[in-house]
This record gives sequence, structure tokens and C-alpha cells, in this order.
Amino acid sequence: VRILLVNPNTTTAMTDEMVASAQRVASSDCEVVGATAARGVESIDSYYDELLGAHAVVTALQEQDGTFDAAIIACFGDPGLDAAREVLDVPVVGIAEASFIAAITLGRRFSVLTTLDRGVPPIEDVIRHHGFAGRCASVRATGLTVLEADSDSALAAEALEREGRRAIEVDGADVLCLGCGAMVEVRERVEQRLAVPVVEGVPAAQVLAEGLVRCGWRTSKVRGYKHPEPTVRT
Amino acid sequence: VRILLVNPNTTTAMTDEMVASAQRVASSDCEVVGATAARGVESIDSYYDELLGAHAVVTALQEQDGTFDAAIIACFGDPGLDAAREVLDVPVVGIAEASFIAAITLGRRFSVLTTLDRGVPPIEDVIRHHGFAGRCASVRATGLTVLEADSDSALAAEALEREGRRAIEVDGADVLCLGCGAMVEVRERVEQRLAVPVVEGVPAAQVLAEGLVRCGWRTSKVRGYKHPEPTVRT
Amino acid sequence: VRILLVNPNTTTAMTDEMVASAQRVASSDCEVVGATAARGVESIDSYYDELLGAHAVVTALQEQDGTFDAAIIACFGDPGLDAAREVLDVPVVGIAEASFIAAITLGRRFSVLTTLDRGVPPIEDVIRHHGFAGRCASVRATGLTVLEADSDSALAAEALEREGRRAIEVDGADVLCLGCGAMVEVRERVEQRLAVPVVEGVPAAQVLAEGLVRCGWRTSKVRGYKHPEPTVRT
Amino acid sequence: VRILLVNPNTTTAMTDEMVASAQRVASSDCEVVGATAARGVESIDSYYDELLGAHAVVTALQEQDGTFDAAIIACFGDPGLDAAREVLDVPVVGIAEASFIAAITLGRRFSVLTTLDRGVPPIEDVIRHHGFAGRCASVRATGLTVLEADSDSALAAEALEREGRRAIEVDGADVLCLGCGAMVEVRERVEQRLAVPVVEGVPAAQVLAEGLVRCGWRTSKVRGYKHPEPTVRT
Amino acid sequence: VRILLVNPNTTTAMTDEMVASAQRVASSDCEVVGATAARGVESIDSYYDELLGAHAVVTALQEQDGTFDAAIIACFGDPGLDAAREVLDVPVVGIAEASFIAAITLGRRFSVLTTLDRGVPPIEDVIRHHGFAGRCASVRATGLTVLEADSDSALAAEALEREGRRAIEVDGADVLCLGCGAMVEVRERVEQRLAVPVVEGVPAAQVLAEGLVRCGWRTSKVRGYKHPEPTVRT
Amino acid sequence: VRILLVNPNTTTAMTDEMVASAQRVASSDCEVVGATAARGVESIDSYYDELLGAHAVVTALQEQDGTFDAAIIACFGDPGLDAAREVLDVPVVGIAEASFIAAITLGRRFSVLTTLDRGVPPIEDVIRHHGFAGRCASVRATGLTVLEADSDSALAAEALEREGRRAIEVDGADVLCLGCGAMVEVRERVEQRLAVPVVEGVPAAQVLAEGLVRCGWRTSKVRGYKHPEPTVRT
Repeated sequence: VRILLVNPNTTTAMTDEMVASAQRVASSDCEVVGATAARGVESIDSYYDELLGAHAVVTALQEQDGTFDAAIIACFGDPGLDAAREVLDVPVVGIAEASFIAAITLGRRFSVLTTLDRGVPPIEDVIRHHGFAGRCASVRATGLTVLEADSDSALAAEALEREGRRAIEVDGADVLCLGCGAMVEVRERVEQRLAVPVVEGVPAAQVLAEGLVRCGWRTSKVRGYKHPEPTVRT
Repeated sequence: VRILLVNPNTTTAMTDEMVASAQRVASSDCEVVGATAARGVESIDSYYDELLGAHAVVTALQEQDGTFDAAIIACFGDPGLDAAREVLDVPVVGIAEASFIAAITLGRRFSVLTTLDRGVPPIEDVIRHHGFAGRCASVRATGLTVLEADSDSALAAEALEREGRRAIEVDGADVLCLGCGAMVEVRERVEQRLAVPVVEGVPAAQVLAEGLVRCGWRTSKVRGYKHPEPTVRT
Repeated sequence: VRILLVNPNTTTAMTDEMVASAQRVASSDCEVVGATAARGVESIDSYYDELLGAHAVVTALQEQDGTFDAAIIACFGDPGLDAAREVLDVPVVGIAEASFIAAITLGRRFSVLTTLDRGVPPIEDVIRHHGFAGRCASVRATGLTVLEADSDSALAAEALEREGRRAIEVDGADVLCLGCGAMVEVRERVEQRLAVPVVEGVPAAQVLAEGLVRCGWRTSKVRGYKHPEPTVRT
Repeated sequence: VRILLVNPNTTTAMTDEMVASAQRVASSDCEVVGATAARGVESIDSYYDELLGAHAVVTALQEQDGTFDAAIIACFGDPGLDAAREVLDVPVVGIAEASFIAAITLGRRFSVLTTLDRGVPPIEDVIRHHGFAGRCASVRATGLTVLEADSDSALAAEALEREGRRAIEVDGADVLCLGCGAMVEVRERVEQRLAVPVVEGVPAAQVLAEGLVRCGWRTSKVRGYKHPEPTVRT
Repeated sequence: VRILLVNPNTTTAMTDEMVASAQRVASSDCEVVGATAARGVESIDSYYDELLGAHAVVTALQEQDGTFDAAIIACFGDPGLDAAREVLDVPVVGIAEASFIAAITLGRRFSVLTTLDRGVPPIEDVIRHHGFAGRCASVRATGLTVLEADSDSALAAEALEREGRRAIEVDGADVLCLGCGAMVEVRERVEQRLAVPVVEGVPAAQVLAEGLVRCGWRTSKVRGYKHPEPTVRT
Repeated sequence: VRILLVNPNTTTAMTDEMVASAQRVASSDCEVVGATAARGVESIDSYYDELLGAHAVVTALQEQDGTFDAAIIACFGDPGLDAAREVLDVPVVGIAEASFIAAITLGRRFSVLTTLDRGVPPIEDVIRHHGFAGRCASVRATGLTVLEADSDSALAAEALEREGRRAIEVDGADVLCLGCGAMVEVRERVEQRLAVPVVEGVPAAQVLAEGLVRCGWRTSKVRGYKHPEPTVRT
């Protein structure tokens, strides 16, 4: 089994980390290969950046089509997911979607923790688009930028603990999802302190994608995910 | 008042028609200017094409930013709407959104008529994204391609009447929305035959956009629609 | 274009103010005419008063039917809106509905600010009736009566700022709607202090009603808004 | 226990029949008294007529306030229910609401059968207002007017059977609710033919109202149903 | 009329209290008989205990089938309700369901007060299963165990007042429902202090069950509540 | 990795088939072990049978607790799932839940095909309980009993094709889920004829359960799924 993990931003170091994270939970006969957006943004923090990222994702998938059994879109907003499913035959999963899927098997309601307040509406949009609003307790921002979260892990851990605790105690979450790759490093620490499962999207997506391949299922081509109609594209 | 109407596909003839349609309902001191996607697709019929169209829309809006008081995204899926609101300060409206807004003031429930079956899920997505699911009776496909609808208006009228009648009688619609530009030509005929309001997106968006300008309101910059964060974009 | 603005309460001074407010955003060829409830309540603060107001609205509209191209019901609960649409052929819009419509084009979620706590459930009802619950962040009361809000604008501004700030920071609103006419005077001040769009219903309704007339659309008569059946009415 | 049943239309024969129907299921120490709308409409078939009926209901209830332990609003749209709860301290129930309550204890989903197609949207509104949309399979019209339903019971029975069967087989209803008083006469016949419970609103409301009195509960006065504020009413 | 009240836990003292509470609001020709779970748990505080209780409920109902006109399942999670409706022909009501029904006739939104935090998700499940989510303001835990609530009524009253006040002031509840039998003793005190209706499930269920019998309605056998299929059961 | 698959009915031949089906998609270092309900029903077709099955499931899981890394509840209604999650620390997944999860990654909307009409409401309940209602197009019954479906595969295939085609064409499904174990044999044939993914629950659950183990996540013990409180159980 061969899984292509596409990083929608242009930071290859992040791609490498995510591939390693996916490979860690893959079964022994499954290889994870990374692809990084050739053009676009260094890090995705807005609707606009998601659009650029979505474009880069679909371009990368088309270029490598035929070389993988399933694909992972490795950015929490799942940019380009519907278009990717349309263009490809093999299964495609997003890390936000995969996080929600893992979360609902571990508790009745989940919360998502993200960086800036501006990231909350797009995450609420993706929750609603995927149909998980009824299982979501809240989306909470730590107020840290990706850079801050990435460079000072003590600060990140503290902020995640604080907002995670509120998600559990005030909003009624049983499970937390990390809505930003820069938070992954402190995942275990937060899990231990708060004593709830803290879901990370990349491994969740890896086992989901690999599982779909093992079962032999491919994207439905009967309605919304039919291959695009022939037209002139420039 | 100056309104920029952006056509997300590359067909300039369609831009001209839509600008004329908007200008027809504009007030005397309001000028409508068109912009056509520089790159992308001739006509938009899939999630993938919407993504290309969204990219083209935002590029066009950024290039002309500062020259208009409000913008219209003139494709029924409202491609790039959230990103456009983020990038600009002035109001931006989509023709799907504007159609639903007009429709809910004219009846309790509306149906959308579109071309191919594959177009139904993306339209259901945009209805849900904008929050109008509770007012929508159904989305129905005529089975005609854009080309067929455009080239044979008798055929288009007949198909729209057939599906429109079912929307009214079976699904309980009071109002119909045209989910494809190629259907606009037969709008009046269908309206007369079925004796219900048949909403066309471009005029609906024109009066909505002009109205927001008259009221002096601009897009909120407090959360989801803040200007994109500074980052490296290539 | 001629718009009839009906004030559901009996206070003619309020009608005059609202007509002026509507006229300010009307286009040059559009005239706004006011009508005040002949009987009913001085100010509407309850389900019961809304019922009296609804009755007065429909009576006024019937009396003047034929003299206007569209009508505005100028009370935030939209009293009598469904009945008015049934009785008339021309478009009728309510100021609550028009506020929500403007708000959803300016941000992802809106909050409504009103006077007394008792006003919250009726406003939640009208939000749900119109189908905007998915876009509403909260309805918050300032605790001021209409009289207090009207007579002490400093007090009103302060209360609106306080609750508006909570709506933004705690509830996640991008846009605020004023749920009481007495608050209109301080709208601009609150908008500047909080740096979010603050929507006022009367201008929102004016541009919506005028826009429907420009587009040539009239209320659907096919199902729920058919003219009332012939019967004995006493 | 004394229950006041208010008929929102002006047809006293209908009041008498409904009082008899309520008395039949009342316990031995409970008396049902009727009140007929002094002014308004002979039969209620539209949003406009419901508004007139709502006005008549609240007037009747205020006139007799103090003489009853609970009230029933005996028209399927529950006209004036919120205003009545606000004006009175004792419990008030509507026959639509009471029908839905009975129905959800007898099956997983119910359908409502009504007369004309135009009656469907207002009934859908009242279902949504009361919060029962998730338990409702459909609202179906027989196409008969109240007069036709009333004067030809064989015709009414046949139409109800036809639509009731579709509600069960196509829409998945377990229970039927009669959405029109004129259908009551054939209730038992339809129940036997279709072998499902067929709920009639008046007895359902009688046992609900009497039950609330027995339990000693009265309408909450803490928020939305507080007594109306003092104001000038003319 | 003969009502069987089944206590899903094995504590007979609680059965006796609940039968007395039901009998108090029954009409003079109605007798309430109790049945206690022969096996299972002393008190029900978890999904697992609800499952044991559900099993016990259905066993008890089957043993006594034919001796009663309607049944009440007297535990707030309504354990075994769907199975009981399937097995029996006569009406069965649960005390959670009956509480919600009473609550929605007394105010626009209700809150449920329960013991431990762990009890909140199962109560939210039963609210959603019955379809009352749109009318529910919140479910709040006092933090007391059943034992603590039962043994120290001053402590219970204080905790209920505190959480009840928050339900009213923060969550917007008009009506409170007691989600635990041990709280019943202090119901009146809390009702007086908070000046809102406080609904107790057993009397609510008694009048609901008796009312269904008076109206002559029985559980629908057409779809989900058909008698179980013949099979081998061991 | 060791997965325990629990069959909630007493038919061991079915357990063996399901274990084989799970093992087929397991990775090489994962062993699937079966457990059959010691008591209960031969096949589960009703709410009552689900209750018996749920009881048997939790008993089996408790007996073998400590010998497996995750568990699968192998009956489409997911009987006992919440109780099992409460009792155990390791992940537990149901085959209905796992089917919906696979389905939503393969298309926008899924339909479930089941045997008898009576099975539709319980499946709708489990869809709603898990929060997938927004992604479900329909639940359709073939009208065949489990026995008929099992003994005549040509008949079963034909019935599934007929209802599956309607689900796709009328209800708008992209993906089908098999809601009955007896249908599994004809899965591939139906998939080929209808050209859409046809999801089978057991393999879907196997890869989901194994994936959760690989990621190291366990059920949240912070709220609803805490271990049951100490009490007397008999």
C-alpha cells in the first residue's frame, strides 16, 4: 500500500515531519510518500491561503496520479478535498475530517483547539461541511500564532492546557482535536495533563486512508465526485 | 456607486451579458463594470472547476482593488466568496447567496434548478454553507449540459418547466432559483407558465450589492474575514 | 418606485424618523411614504403587543393597497409579515429579516442586541422562523427599557458596547444587529468603538424592498401566500 | 377543574362539538366550557385568518380570565398561543401542539393531514415553532376545502385514507394527526382502515390541559411569557 | 384506568414513593400500581446501568402484560422505552419524555438539572432521541451523587438553586426539569425560590399516560413498534 | 494487535463468517478473535432484540476484558456501544458507525439498505445518535426477511439493486451501506451493477478499530464514558 501525503503549504520541513508521523502508525507493508506544494503559502491561516493551498494540492495530486493507492491532504481545513475526490479515483482523506472521525469514536463530543481567533470560523465551516456539528462541543483559539506555537513549546503546552480545560469543563468536550500542526509536539503532554484523548490529524488520516485501501473502496463517481466535465482549461 | 462584476469563467461574452443584466436593475447613479477570469475554465461544472474559478476571482479582485464600491461573484457556486471578503474591505456578494436572499422574501421555500445531476451536491453545499437549508425545498437537475441549455432555448424551457413543476407540486417550493446562467434567457417564459417567481442571480446580486453600499456597510474585519496574515506567498 | 413603510406601533414621531432613515438610502427615483398603526400599542415589547401590531399592520396595508410598489414592516419582530404577504401582491419585507440578510453578507455570524431580557425569546423565534439560526451567534439584552434607551443615549451606547463586546468576544459574532428602534441614534458610535458593522433594520429593509421592485419580483401566490380564501369576516 | 376551550373562529356549532369532544375524555371532576370568537372569521384557512383568530382568542381569554384553571386554543395553527401564555397565569395549550405531543408517544414519526395545499406551509411553521420537525414525517393536503370535507364524509374519508396511506408508506409515518376539525367525524373509520393511531387535537389538548392543572404547574413568568409591559393600548 | 409504574432500579422504597407521587395527581377512577426491577442496579447512573435497567423494565412489563392500561418507565433516561412500546400494545411513557412535554407547554426553553457531570451526556442523548433539542437550553449537573442529594436535602436545595439560577440567567431557561428522583423532595422549595415551574417526571408521566388511555390511543404497530419478529430467544 | 469481534446474536456460524471477513482486511500483525452472545436472540430484528443483544455484548466484553486491544460490536444497530465504551478502556467501534464513517469519505451522501420496513426507524435512530443525519440520503427496506435474504442470494441481489438504484436516483445517494449481515454475500455483485461503493460494516469496523489501536487512543473517561459508579448490581 502506498499513501501520498500532500502538504498544502510550501514548507518542506513540515512535510517531512508529517510523513514521519504517518509512517509511525502505518502497517509494515504500507509506505507513506510526501509531496509539498510547489507554489502557494508558507503557512495557511486564512480563507485566502486555504484557496491557494487547495489549488496546490490538486495540482500535486494530478501530477502524481497513478503512483499511490490513497492520498492525505495534510492541513486542518482539508483544502481542496472535494476537488481532489473528483479528480482522482483512489480515496482521499483530509486531516480535519480524520480527526473528527477518530474523536467521535472516543467520546460523545469533541472540541478543536486552534491558534488565532480568526481560524475559528473556517474550522466551524469545515465541521459543518463534513456534517459533524452535532458532535462538536466548541472550537477554541489559544491566541498564539503558528510561529509562537512552534517556537515555544512550553507556551504552547500551557495555552493548550488552559483552553482544553475550558473545553472539557465549560463546553462539555470528552475529546480534543489539535487544529494546527505546530501543536503536535506537545500533544502527549497535554493528553497526560488533561487525561482526555488528544487527537492528531496526520496519524488519524493515515489509518483511515490505509483502511479504505485495505477494504478496496474507491471514491463514488456517480454524482458529485464524477470526473470533471471536458472543457477548455487555461 | 461602482460595482465590479467578476465572471469566474473565461468566457467574455458571458461577462458582457451579465453586466448588461445587472446594469438593467441598477439605479441611475450606479455603474456596473465587468471583469473576466484571465485564466481558468470556459464554464464551471465541478468542484475542481470551482476551485480554478475561485482562484481567478480573487486574483481579479485584488488587481482591481480600490476601483469599486462593491463586488459581485457571478457564478452560482459563489466560488472564492469567503476569500474575497477576507482580502477586500468593500462588500462582496455571490449570485447564489443573492438568489436565496431574494427567494426567501417571496415565498416560504425555494427550489434550485440546475443543469446536470453532478451539480446538485455542490449547490446543496453552498446552500448549507450560507445557512439556507431550512428554507430550501429541493435542488433539481434538468439533465441538460450548459451547452445544450444555451443552444436550444425551447428544450431548456421545456426541461425547466418540467422540473420546476415537480419542485412546486412534489417538493413544495413557492419560488424557483435558476442555478445556471444559460437558463436566464428563458426565465420569463418559465415564470409565466408556472406562475411563480423565478429568481435570477445577477440582478438579485446587483441590488443586494448596491444596497449594502447605500447603507454604508463594509465586511467585518474582526474574526473570520480579517485581512490574511503576512506570510510568504509564491 | 414608491415604498410604504408601516410602523406597527401608534407613535407617529417614530414613523417620521424611520421614513427619513429609509429615504436617506433610497435611490433618487424612489419615494418612501409612512403609515402609522391607527390602533394598538405605543411601543411593542411582548408577544401580545406584537399580535396587536400585526393586526394594525395588515389593516394599514389593506387600506393603502394599490398605492405602493413594496412595503416595509418597521418593527423588529416582523409582526404580520406572513399575513401581509398573503394579502398583497407586491413584495413585503420586515426589518428583522432585512437586518439578518444584511448581516450574513458582512460576516459569518451575527448577534442581535435588544432591550429587555423578555425580548430575547420572541427574537429567537423570528430568527428561527426566517431560517437564520445557523448564522446567529446570540441574542443579548441590555436590560434597558425602550424609554431608557431612548431618553439617555450615553447610557444606551454604554450598554450596547458592553453587550456587543461580549457578543463578539464570547459568542463569536462578526456583525451586530440592533433589535430596537430606540438604539438607532447611537449606532454609529457603537460601530466605531467596536469596529464591527452594526446593522440597522430600516435602511436594510429599504434597499431590500427597492431592490425587489427593481428586479420585478412579486410574492409567490402558489401555496402559503395565496390570497385568503373567501369566507365571512366580521 | 374548569377548562375554557376557545374556538378562534366565529362558528358556534363548531365550538359546541369541540366542547363535547373534550368533555368526553375529561375526568369526572372536570368541566369544559366553550367560548367562541366574538369577531373574526367563520373558518380559518390562511395566515391572515390566523391573525384575526389570534386576536379573537386573546380577547376572549382576557374577558374570562379568573374563571378557568387552564385554556385550550381550538384551531390547528394554535393562533395566539404565545400571547395567551403571556397574558394569563394558568396553563394554555393549543390543539396542534397537543396533537404532536400525543403522536410522539405513539410512534417514532407522525404526519399531519390537512385540507388545502395552502395550509401546508403554516402547519410546517407551527411544527417548527414548537420544535417537532425532527419527529414529523410529512404534512399532506387532501385537496378538499373545509366545506367539502364537512359536507361529504365519504369523500373526506376516502381522501384521508389515500393521503394517510402515502404518509405511512412513502413518508414513513407511524401516526397520523388530523389538521382540520372537519375531518374529525371520520377519524375512527380512517384509524380502522389504516391500522395506525389517528390523533385528534381537541381530546389531546383536553387531557394535556387537565393534566397540567392536576400537577399544579403554571406558565413561567421569568422571560418570554412575562405579563406584557405597561404601555398605552388603544 | 390502571397504570403500571415500573421502577428500573431495584430499590422498592423508591417505587413506593413514586407510586404515591403518581397517585396524587391521578383522577379518582385511576389506580397506579408499582413494579420494581427484580434484578439489576440499586440506582442508575451510567449507560451500563441504564442497559441493565432497560432489561429489567421490559421483563417486568412482559410479566404483567394484560393487567394494565398504560405503563410508566420511572427513570429519567427512559430505559427500555422503545423496546417496551414494541412489546406492548398499550401506551408506554417515560418520565424524561413526560417532563420535556410538560416543560414545553410552560415556557419556550427548559433546562434539566441532574446529579453528576457524567449524567449530562446520556440526558442530552435522550433529549435528542425524543427530538426536544431545539427546546432545551442546557443540561446542568449539581455535582452531588444520588446519595448526597438524597441524604442532605438542604445541600440538594442549595445546589439546585445555584445551577437552576444559572440555567435561567445564563442559558435562558424558562422552566426547569429535575433529572433525578432524589431531588424531588426539594422541588417545591426550589420552585418558590427561583419563581419558575420546576417539573417532576413522575406526575408529568402519570397525567400523560392516563390522558392517552382516556383518549383511547395505543402504540402504532405499523413500522418501528411492531411486535418483535418470531425468533429463538434464550 | 488483537481485536475482539462480538456477535450480539447467538448464531456462531455468523460469528465465524464475520471474523473471517475482518481478518481479510486486517494487517499482518493483527489477529481477530470472535465472541458469540451466550444468551439472547438468533437474529436481531427489533428494538427488543437489540436490547437483549446489547446485554449479551456487554457481558461478553466484561468476561474477556484484558485480552484484546480493541473491540467490534458486529450488529448494524451498534447495540450496547455506549455501555461498552463506559465499561472498557480500550476502543470499541460498532459496524453501523464504521459503515457511516467509511461512506462519508467516499461520497457526499449515503443510503442504508436493510431488510424489513420495521428496521428503518431503529437505523434512523442510530444514524441520528451518531450524528450522521446530515450526510444520510435515505434508509430503504428491501422487504426481505433475514432468512429470505440469506437463503436466496439471487433474490437478495435483485432487491438490493432495485432499492439501491432508487437510493441513487431518487434520494441522491453516492454510496450505499449494507444494513444487514445476510446481504454481504452479494455485496460485490451489487457494487458492480450499480457502479457505486457498497460499504460492508465488518471490514469497515476492523480497519477503524485497528487504526485507533495503532494511534494509541483510548476511550475518554472524563464525562459520559467514565467507568460505572460503584453500586449494588444483582
